[in-house]
Amino acid sequence: MAQPQQSPAKRNAREKLLDAAIAVVRTQGFAASSVDELCRAAGVTKGAFFHHFDSKEALGAAAARHWGTTTSGLFAAAPYHDPSDPLDRVLAYIDFRRDLIAGELPEFTCYAGTLVQEAFGSSPDIRDACASAIFEHAKTLEADIAAAATRYGVDLDPAGLARHTQAVLQGGFILSKAAGNDAPVRESIDHLKRYVELLFGRSRSEGSAA
Amino acid sequence: MAQPQQSPAKRNAREKLLDAAIAVVRTQGFAASSVDELCRAAGVTKGAFFHHFDSKEALGAAAARHWGTTTSGLFAAAPYHDPSDPLDRVLAYIDFRRDLIAGELPEFTCYAGTLVQEAFGSSPDIRDACASAIFEHAKTLEADIAAAATRYGVDLDPAGLARHTQAVLQGGFILSKAAGNDAPVRESIDHLKRYVELLFGRSRSEGSAA
Repeated sequence: MAQPQQSPAKRNAREKLLDAAIAVVRTQGFAASSVDELCRAAGVTKGAFFHHFDSKEALGAAAARHWGTTTSGLFAAAPYHDPSDPLDRVLAYIDFRRDLIAGELPEFTCYAGTLVQEAFGSSPDIRDACASAIFEHAKTLEADIAAAATRYGVDLDPAGLARHTQAVLQGGFILSKAAGNDAPVRESIDHLKRYVELLFGRSRSEGSAA
Repeated sequence: MAQPQQSPAKRNAREKLLDAAIAVVRTQGFAASSVDELCRAAGVTKGAFFHHFDSKEALGAAAARHWGTTTSGLFAAAPYHDPSDPLDRVLAYIDFRRDLIAGELPEFTCYAGTLVQEAFGSSPDIRDACASAIFEHAKTLEADIAAAATRYGVDLDPAGLARHTQAVLQGGFILSKAAGNDAPVRESIDHLKRYVELLFGRSRSEGSAA
C-alpha cells in the first residue's frame, strides 16, 4: 500500500510549493526568498523540493505557469462575460478587476508582474512563463474589445488596448506598493474605465470616480 | 595635502555606489545584487561601501533619493514646459516620456518602481524613498493638469491623473520586461496620450497611434 499513498502526497508537495512560491514572492520578491524559506512556507522538506524542481528558478517558472492556469479559471468563471453588449462586457471586466482589490497588498497583486520585474534579465524561463501569464490573459479580452470596436465604429487595435489594460493594473500595483495601500490601483482602474468609456463614446458611468 | 584629496575621493565613492546601485538593480533586481557585486560594479572597496552605508538597504534607499534628485533635474530642464497652453504641456510631457524610451530595458526602466516592487514589505526606508521619488515626480505635473482642467472645463482630480500617468509608465515597463522589448511601454504611452486628448476634448494628434 506504500506506493499508492506516496503518489498523491508527492503531487500535494508540488502544489504546496507552487502556492507557497506565489504567496512568498508576492510578499517579498523572488531573489529574497530562499529554497529553505519556500520549503518552510510550503510545509515540505528540502528533499521534496528537489524531487519536484531542479532549482528555485524552476519553481519560479512553474509557479508562473500555475498562476496563469489558476487565474484563467477564475476569469473564465467570472460574471463579466454575461452582458450581451461587448462594451458592457469590457467595462464589467474592469469593474471585476476593481472588485478583486481586497485585503493586503500581497493578496491582490500579481505574481507574474512581480517576478518578471526582478528576473527578466537573468532567467529566460521565468520571463517566458510570466509573459505567457500576462499576455495570454490579455488575449482573452481581445474578442470583446474587437466586437465593441465594430459595434461602436471605433478605430483601435484590440490587442493593443487589451495589453494596455494589463499595464494599467501592473502599474497601479506598483504605485500601491509605494503608497502602502490600495488607493492608487483603484484610482488607475477608474481612469482605465473612464478611458474605455471615452474611447467608445459611452456616457460616464456612476462607478467611474476618476 | 592628504585631507583635501581624500574628501573628494570619498564623495566620489559614494556617488559611484549610488550610480552602480541604480544600474545593477535595474538589470537584475535588489535582492539578487550582493554588496560585493555592487562594490565591483562601482569599482570601490567593501571598506568604502561600509564607510558610506551601514547596509545594502541603506544604499538602496539612498539610491532611490539620488534617483529622485537626478531625474527631477532632467525633468525640470526638459522642453515640455515651454508651450503656453497647459494641455500642450501635459501632452508634451507624455511625448517626452516616450522619447526617453531608448536603448536596453535597464537603461529606460524605473529604479524606484523596480525596487519598491521587491522591498515594499521588508524595508519601510526603501518603500518611503521610492514612494517619494514616484509621487514627488507626479506632483510636478499637477499644476499643468489643474490649469488645463480649468481652461477646458474638465471635471477631474489633477493629483489623481498625475499619479495615473506614472502608473501607466510603471506598468508599461513591466509588460516590456515580460515581452523583452520596448513595444508595450510605447503602446501604453500612446494610450495614455489618447486618454488625455479624449478627456480634454482635444482632437487626436498625429503622434497618437493607439
